[in-house]
Amino acid sequence: MEQEFFLSVYRHSLSHIMAKAVKELYGKDTQIAIGPQIADGFYYDFLMPEGVTVTQDDFKNIEDKMREILKRRENWTRKEVTKQEAMEIFEGEKFKIELIQDLPESEIITVYYTGDDYVDLCRGPHVDNSQELMNVAFEIRSASGAYWRGDEKRDSLQRIYAYAFPDKQQLKDHKALIKEALERDHKKLGPQLELFMLDETAPGMPYWLPRGWKLFNALLNFWRDIHEDHGYQEISAPQIQKKDLWVTSGHWAHYQDGMFVIPVNPENPDDLYAVKPMNCPNAIKVYQSKGRSYKDLPLRFSEVDVIHRKEKSGELNGLFRVQMFRQDDDHTLLTEDQIGAEIDDILKIATSIYETFGLTYVAELSTRPDDFMGDVEVWNHAEAELKEILDKYYGEGGYEINEGDGAFYGPKIDLKMKDALGREWQMGTVQLDFQLPLNFDLKYTDSDGMQKRPVMIHRAIFGSFERFIGILIENFKGAFPFWLSPFQVAIVPIRTSHNDYAKKVYDELRKAGIRVEVDYADKNMRDKIKTYKTYKDPYILVLGDKEAEEETVSINMRGNNKQIQGMPLKDFVEMCRVMNAEHSLELKESL
Amino acid sequence: MEQEFFLSVYRHSLSHIMAKAVKELYGKDTQIAIGPQIADGFYYDFLMPEGVTVTQDDFKNIEDKMREILKRRENWTRKEVTKQEAMEIFEGEKFKIELIQDLPESEIITVYYTGDDYVDLCRGPHVDNSQELMNVAFEIRSASGAYWRGDEKRDSLQRIYAYAFPDKQQLKDHKALIKEALERDHKKLGPQLELFMLDETAPGMPYWLPRGWKLFNALLNFWRDIHEDHGYQEISAPQIQKKDLWVTSGHWAHYQDGMFVIPVNPENPDDLYAVKPMNCPNAIKVYQSKGRSYKDLPLRFSEVDVIHRKEKSGELNGLFRVQMFRQDDDHTLLTEDQIGAEIDDILKIATSIYETFGLTYVAELSTRPDDFMGDVEVWNHAEAELKEILDKYYGEGGYEINEGDGAFYGPKIDLKMKDALGREWQMGTVQLDFQLPLNFDLKYTDSDGMQKRPVMIHRAIFGSFERFIGILIENFKGAFPFWLSPFQVAIVPIRTSHNDYAKKVYDELRKAGIRVEVDYADKNMRDKIKTYKTYKDPYILVLGDKEAEEETVSINMRGNNKQIQGMPLKDFVEMCRVMNAEHSLELKESL
Repeated sequence: MEQEFFLSVYRHSLSHIMAKAVKELYGKDTQIAIGPQIADGFYYDFLMPEGVTVTQDDFKNIEDKMREILKRRENWTRKEVTKQEAMEIFEGEKFKIELIQDLPESEIITVYYTGDDYVDLCRGPHVDNSQELMNVAFEIRSASGAYWRGDEKRDSLQRIYAYAFPDKQQLKDHKALIKEALERDHKKLGPQLELFMLDETAPGMPYWLPRGWKLFNALLNFWRDIHEDHGYQEISAPQIQKKDLWVTSGHWAHYQDGMFVIPVNPENPDDLYAVKPMNCPNAIKVYQSKGRSYKDLPLRFSEVDVIHRKEKSGELNGLFRVQMFRQDDDHTLLTEDQIGAEIDDILKIATSIYETFGLTYVAELSTRPDDFMGDVEVWNHAEAELKEILDKYYGEGGYEINEGDGAFYGPKIDLKMKDALGREWQMGTVQLDFQLPLNFDLKYTDSDGMQKRPVMIHRAIFGSFERFIGILIENFKGAFPFWLSPFQVAIVPIRTSHNDYAKKVYDELRKAGIRVEVDYADKNMRDKIKTYKTYKDPYILVLGDKEAEEETVSINMRGNNKQIQGMPLKDFVEMCRVMNAEHSLELKESL
Repeated sequence: MEQEFFLSVYRHSLSHIMAKAVKELYGKDTQIAIGPQIADGFYYDFLMPEGVTVTQDDFKNIEDKMREILKRRENWTRKEVTKQEAMEIFEGEKFKIELIQDLPESEIITVYYTGDDYVDLCRGPHVDNSQELMNVAFEIRSASGAYWRGDEKRDSLQRIYAYAFPDKQQLKDHKALIKEALERDHKKLGPQLELFMLDETAPGMPYWLPRGWKLFNALLNFWRDIHEDHGYQEISAPQIQKKDLWVTSGHWAHYQDGMFVIPVNPENPDDLYAVKPMNCPNAIKVYQSKGRSYKDLPLRFSEVDVIHRKEKSGELNGLFRVQMFRQDDDHTLLTEDQIGAEIDDILKIATSIYETFGLTYVAELSTRPDDFMGDVEVWNHAEAELKEILDKYYGEGGYEINEGDGAFYGPKIDLKMKDALGREWQMGTVQLDFQLPLNFDLKYTDSDGMQKRPVMIHRAIFGSFERFIGILIENFKGAFPFWLSPFQVAIVPIRTSHNDYAKKVYDELRKAGIRVEVDYADKNMRDKIKTYKTYKDPYILVLGDKEAEEETVSINMRGNNKQIQGMPLKDFVEMCRVMNAEHSLELKESL
């Protein structure tokens, strides 16, 4: 916390230095707007003199001027002034004047002087003297347009961003991380590897290209297999449903803005359908399709149907923030007594799934909020059970507790992963729900013959397939584990005379359940290999006379220049089969 | 044709006899409306005297009266009358009067007398004497309400339906067929086998229940496998897209009424999205995502995304007529030269798929209509190629030609199947399209470096998964071939002490890719078996001490009372594996 506080003081103070530098460089006509700190530094917004645009070429100049100002070792002075005094101090700075005007009459306003000739409107705190900033590492990152107060009808400003870190090493590390993240950016890699694309006719609704759809289905099949073994039953349900259903579920009251609503009858404006933003009501409808006994519970209805949620276009972001996606969703109906064992099983599945990808995660428990619904005893019992299981999995104190942060309808556990760059992602969620079973009046017949109300668990482990794949692309930099690769093996016959043998190898691999592609075309083998390398296929088999004659394969391994000559075909097929079965993270070179 | 003509005369004449009988039985106050022939007989609509409702109890009475009338051996007389004369003849029959009033002034009107005391307005032809009808087999089937002219604001009539066939045997056969069809009705069997359900909150949008979704995916995987071997690439695309796209594709102009349209901006009523009713534009977007060379063609983009089409609620019919479904869709882009070979390959796939289900089919070619678009030479060439391939597959004259019945954008081949009851179903379709590549300005670079326009083929073999599954349910009466069954094997441990061995058997079968379910619960084994029999699982394994000890399984075979005792477990697993691989239609009892 202390470090964060100092960082905030340094970054904020540096933003004043930048403003002072820009005014010195571009003259008094430059108007200053605001200059907040951000996650990795700060920015300042300027209204530049007419005709002046700050570009990359100017960055060094501004940085030099900032360093020159720091060397002046000027004192910083904080002054408390009245609104009237502030108006006089900032006369001519129209943005500051507007900010001051918006303040209440009685407010004590603080201003900070850097030396005698630069003053800024600011709550502070700041450094006492500029020399404190001399060891801070900073660097201008970029400049871009921005509107005053984000309003496109107001002044068009220029925003200058800078990184700022306590020392040079931290700045360097951060820049390396940014560079690495950019190289891994799924929005760049996805189209490059021909996994997915986005088109302006369907914003935030990804197209899965053939290779991406292979990967998607490999992931889906992996997920299905595990869940089938744990007694889950998959359903698929309507995507467009009548308003009535959403009224009952509560979505109409609480989530209408996020739904694509469809008027179906011009004569009756209340005859509305909506595209589903969540799967919960469908699982409930299936639950209600027949009488249910305590012997049937828990009933676990999983569902990967496409769902749609409206987002503002500015908030869309590749596969991370979309308007159309598929959750690895499940809704389990169970008795109160079964909660503990069920959560235990869910965490077992989650751990096993994340481990398959080599990803670590932390759990967070959110408990009863003030506006909770239902019986406090049921909550207490449920929370105690959740804690007991979390203790068992992560040790006491091995997970975070967010007291009072649960949903009004039940406590929840969130699972957050760390990727290869150390970035955190909210992924899995396990939510108890005492509300929906009530809204839909769900029942089961208990052993005593009485009608009782089941509890519902909403849970997802990937979160959404789309977002999880986006994370996987970045985590693995597009070089997916063998078992997950869109195509696991690519075959390059050296000449068309080797096509027959290539076909044989293809058939053998297909028969073993391996995803394999082959290029029979009459073109240069080097071009074929280059294409498959671009796609990051794990193994590229190069087949010529020798291989055909000896029934072997020669292998180009992904990720290094290593080649393996003449592995017997049947050994290679078996190696692939075993890697698939084991969900191997690393490529193997032999059995 | 001759038989059809006579059938039409008989049925039509019998409807007059029914009207005469009803008037004699219920008095002159009974008003007659219309009485057309239908596929298996005829009906007549009556406005009955106040308070009279015809029910099943009255059917015999009416039939007896009809037979009595036939025995009168009355002559039938045709008369041509003027409109004025007709008005006089039918004075008091308000429906007939209305029909006459609607006729043009100059029209010669024909009326038919049956004896002296019954006359009907009719174009005929009819029999000359009632005795010709004495050997025709007829039977009143049902009575129901109907509105005059289908308008719910007009008179509420009673419609009496009757079967009518040339002889008793044909009537008997038809009734047996109807009974069989009712027993096979997928709307009855589907929910009974827990395959799918429909709910009023999503009309015509089926829910796939866990068992049905297993079947769906078995069918999908079968389809995917075949198509991957034939070089198809599956994509998945957005379901909701901007109006712009639908304007370009032509759907906005020609199919707007069938689309669920979504206004997304209350301030701009023209800011519209629509849920996709077809996949074609998506395949095109993917085609356009990169430059394409002649070397890349044909490019086959298959797609099983959910699509939605608005239907009138009265037209919905189980899985046969829905508002939400998945086509086994494909859009192939290719050069004109490649059309022949491609159609050949498609028919190869279609034949192999239909044969897997034991279904026969016939092909129909629809050729250039008057309002065709494009180059007549291209049409001629394409049609000649289609004929050549159809000749090759079905022999000259082995398929039907519908001259001039093609779409304006290209010729097409339809594939119609016959099911186990001899009913015909339009299933597969292969359509050439010269128009969409033009609308979207599609290009490829030819070997001469020129930009050329590809041709598009739309094709489906199942038609839609939903409809095809509906047909399969009826065709197989819910007892699907082994490879397609939702669960292929059910396991019944005799007592809970046999659960360990049951788990072992389950694991072995799962490992071999068999869909298997097991009931470990502590309940009567007979109840467990009964449940699995209801589901029509192909093999039910009953496991007790002997089986556990000897590592065998005892099998209850579906469809007969045959039991197989003590088959070695590994033989059973291998038998199942082979049946899956061979897509076996029949159950086996051993290797």
